[in-house]
Amino acid sequence: MTKVISISREFASGGREIGKKLAERLSFAYYDKEVINEIAKDTNLSKEYLDHYSESNLTRNFPITIGHSFGLVYPMITPSDEVYKQQIDVMKKLAGEGDCVFIGRCSDYILRNMNILRVFIYSTKMEEKIDRCKAKANVDELISDTELKKRILKVDRDRKEYYEYYTSLTWGDVKNYDLCINTARFSVDEAVEIIAKAITKI
Amino acid sequence: MTKVISISREFASGGREIGKKLAERLSFAYYDKEVINEIAKDTNLSKEYLDHYSESNLTRNFPITIGHSFGLVYPMITPSDEVYKQQIDVMKKLAGEGDCVFIGRCSDYILRNMNILRVFIYSTKMEEKIDRCKAKANVDELISDTELKKRILKVDRDRKEYYEYYTSLTWGDVKNYDLCINTARFSVDEAVEIIAKAITKI
Repeated sequence: MTKVISISREFASGGREIGKKLAERLSFAYYDKEVINEIAKDTNLSKEYLDHYSESNLTRNFPITIGHSFGLVYPMITPSDEVYKQQIDVMKKLAGEGDCVFIGRCSDYILRNMNILRVFIYSTKMEEKIDRCKAKANVDELISDTELKKRILKVDRDRKEYYEYYTSLTWGDVKNYDLCINTARFSVDEAVEIIAKAITKI
Repeated sequence: MTKVISISREFASGGREIGKKLAERLSFAYYDKEVINEIAKDTNLSKEYLDHYSESNLTRNFPITIGHSFGLVYPMITPSDEVYKQQIDVMKKLAGEGDCVFIGRCSDYILRNMNILRVFIYSTKMEEKIDRCKAKANVDELISDTELKKRILKVDRDRKEYYEYYTSLTWGDVKNYDLCINTARFSVDEAVEIIAKAITKI
């Protein structure tokens, strides 16, 4: 049976790198921004638009009332809803094509009825997260550690808000995952080895 | 350097069995009730008393006020405090003697400054937890599934209350662990293999 690995991750925890190396090692397909590219091919939505709304920048659907007509509600599809719906379709299609690794985008929830290993990658060492961001930044993007920390926490708050809106589950709660790995304790390669061991068991 | 594995676990998740098999496989010492026995040897406290207060049945220290003398507080050592303090001393002593596995009793927190792998074992399948309890029960202990579920949840609530009182951390929150494994997805033997792989990395 096709095996699916979903990697949910805190920002700058090394989760994406773990997913990429894992896919290479296991010869699984790897789907991160590839989900966006796939949707862009099939729709008239731009990659920038899709990327913006793919797992953060949640746009909520507020009821519209006209004048004093309380209770008169027009259902409205928000940009987030539009992108989320496209993601469901594309992710299910891709997961049906063979063994694969998905990064984020509620993949643990969307693909929950498949033969899936749901992994959560996090790190309890903020200084290592900051270093990871710096290593990837361009020279002209360099900002203070304090500012970087704020941005890191903001990305996670956004992902959490998005995830919880569409799944009604708590982001980062062990109950939603099969395996949770703290990269403050394990390197990227070590985490890959642990997950590779675990995937042989499902 | 001595390696310590701390297994925190939801009740009936298979955590204790995982810890025992892991210790056997790695030839590590195994400390569960052994901690209690060790304290009983060195003190005048009974095993029953120690067991009762070892990781649940928290007794809180309420300030005592006499008459209208608000603010007059007598420090009081509760049974929980007494047992917890003994556990700290004995666990640190045992952990210093060589590679070992500890089950619960805030060992992740008490031994946090050692070379420790902090594991949390949980299960999202209540029916499997109930089956695990039934398999261990004596014939005359058999009770309904509903009653068993209530007891399972009660044990976890007690452990959570005890843990959070002494550590000021949230029991079952990924942040306090290095590796979290859902036994709804992995068997006891599979979990042992995953942890055995992880321990080679620390």
